[in-house]
Amino acid sequence: MITTEIKPPYLIFFAEKKELKFVKTGIGLFEWRRDLCVGQLGIDGGHLEIELPQMSIKEAHAAGVKSLIIGTTSIGGGLPAQWMDTFIEAANIGMDIVGGLHEQLNDAPDLKKAADKSGAKLIDIRVPPKNIPVGTGKKRSGKRVLMVGTDCAVGKKYTALALERDMLKAGMDVDFRASGQTGIIIAGKGIPIDAVVVDFISGAAEILSPDNADNHYDIIEGQGGIFHPGYSAVSLGLLIGSQPGAFVVCHKAGRQNIGGWDDFPLPSIQQVIDRTTELGKQVNPEIKCVGISVNTEDLSDEERAPYLENLSKKYGLPCIDPIKDGTDAIIANLV
Amino acid sequence: MITTEIKPPYLIFFAEKKELKFVKTGIGLFEWRRDLCVGQLGIDGGHLEIELPQMSIKEAHAAGVKSLIIGTTSIGGGLPAQWMDTFIEAANIGMDIVGGLHEQLNDAPDLKKAADKSGAKLIDIRVPPKNIPVGTGKKRSGKRVLMVGTDCAVGKKYTALALERDMLKAGMDVDFRASGQTGIIIAGKGIPIDAVVVDFISGAAEILSPDNADNHYDIIEGQGGIFHPGYSAVSLGLLIGSQPGAFVVCHKAGRQNIGGWDDFPLPSIQQVIDRTTELGKQVNPEIKCVGISVNTEDLSDEERAPYLENLSKKYGLPCIDPIKDGTDAIIANLV
Repeated sequence: MITTEIKPPYLIFFAEKKELKFVKTGIGLFEWRRDLCVGQLGIDGGHLEIELPQMSIKEAHAAGVKSLIIGTTSIGGGLPAQWMDTFIEAANIGMDIVGGLHEQLNDAPDLKKAADKSGAKLIDIRVPPKNIPVGTGKKRSGKRVLMVGTDCAVGKKYTALALERDMLKAGMDVDFRASGQTGIIIAGKGIPIDAVVVDFISGAAEILSPDNADNHYDIIEGQGGIFHPGYSAVSLGLLIGSQPGAFVVCHKAGRQNIGGWDDFPLPSIQQVIDRTTELGKQVNPEIKCVGISVNTEDLSDEERAPYLENLSKKYGLPCIDPIKDGTDAIIANLV
Repeated sequence: MITTEIKPPYLIFFAEKKELKFVKTGIGLFEWRRDLCVGQLGIDGGHLEIELPQMSIKEAHAAGVKSLIIGTTSIGGGLPAQWMDTFIEAANIGMDIVGGLHEQLNDAPDLKKAADKSGAKLIDIRVPPKNIPVGTGKKRSGKRVLMVGTDCAVGKKYTALALERDMLKAGMDVDFRASGQTGIIIAGKGIPIDAVVVDFISGAAEILSPDNADNHYDIIEGQGGIFHPGYSAVSLGLLIGSQPGAFVVCHKAGRQNIGGWDDFPLPSIQQVIDRTTELGKQVNPEIKCVGISVNTEDLSDEERAPYLENLSKKYGLPCIDPIKDGTDAIIANLV
């Protein structure tokens, strides 16, 4: 499979950060792949209050760590000079380094030299793999469930990860398929779909969820929104290449307009269901919506239950907040 | 405007070719922009029977030529060594070189060195401009007509160029907007939409047809097909960013399946009209189909007229072959 692949176990680099809100990637990795994380590494007093010991590069290497994961961002997306000593030490010792910053690890000459010498890989998660083919539209074996959204940042990744977790608990054969940076770091592989040249986006989505066993489920992280004025092509390319038999609509309760595109009202859940079904039929006539996943963090406890019940009645579909309810209701409907 | 721009007048490089079918780009340029072409340059006895004199680089330079346009392709898309002397001579003299081969001019070290020294530009038409922004969806002034297709290679570029020609003849204020390689060489500017990273495709399409006078028309070259299993995301991104008020459906008479994707039946013209209208409404509620343009080269003379009449009656739209009929009927309906 032509995807980025990350070798576990991991040491998470939090730099000088101390607050959870500045380290979303690293915390996401710790939350969803705790068993693959061996330690954390802060500099200049940086430390996160999570159950991961501070470790130096040497200690982590001795403990068998294969990859240093950059779990935070920098102002402007550059590679701060004060991080570089740590990275070069890791590269010298042969540890892969994985980052999603704008400035690429492979563009830092000293770091590249150290990595080339030791054989360590510098993995820039934003850079898609080479040689992605054009989409074929050919039917693949196995089952696929795609997350779609009324907008960006409504919980598509979280819903997909919760589905994978809950399906694994239920003993099902399932893989989360990551199409964005944080998702790739959590999954340990994937393709940053939005960074692919548009001619190849459906081909990339095809590679992301390859042929599989008949009873295997790929739970595919969605991107953008099919009504989004900036990103609808991303969503369509991912939909066409994924050829899902089922999809979940993700939504954030209370959102009125497309985030950052305030002149565009948010589409209704019904509009998203209708358009996704209509467009997805082209590659999979079976496609249907199996549930609605809502981020209800802006609702009060009193509002939450009636809001979800109301939606569920309106659409005749299970309707859950994956953080608070889990996804079992959607899984039951899917199966 | 962030687009590729080519300086006229031109010398067209046909290499060793002698047959029209091997030099489509160069012949397209000569056909549609004859007044900007000063000469042709063949090597090893290459020569095309068109009204353009053979010229050396020196002669062309003396005649005021600013750009050498590679008007043919090579086997495999590489830069043949036997072409390089000519290119280096052109670069040395300060002449820009424009090509759409897979192997980039800027990747040939000796050529790059010569160009850097003289200030000549090496313009790789396949490479999109840098710093393309994400699409805003903001309404722009001026009028826009997008070519869409039942498939790739059905005459979208030809139809757009014919519309521009016929609208200019009618004294209208109009620009052909090129979204593909050959189109860009003909227009002298544009963006290779299918080579843009998918996150930015709608932004690229927005840049391609910027704000303009209220009575100005942009005739936008289409790409792919909205039902295409490989390229539908290209078509959607171009549609959303173009926000056209009108579109023309292009079709090739007799085609049954999507070219190269034989398992996929060609969508009907009605399906393309419906889906384009539905998706395009998101950014321009006025959008409507103003005509059908058919490549009828595979029909006999007896079949042609009834075929077009039949389509015209069925859809209630002007229906023409742009090569044989011109596009006046569509222009009349547009205005």
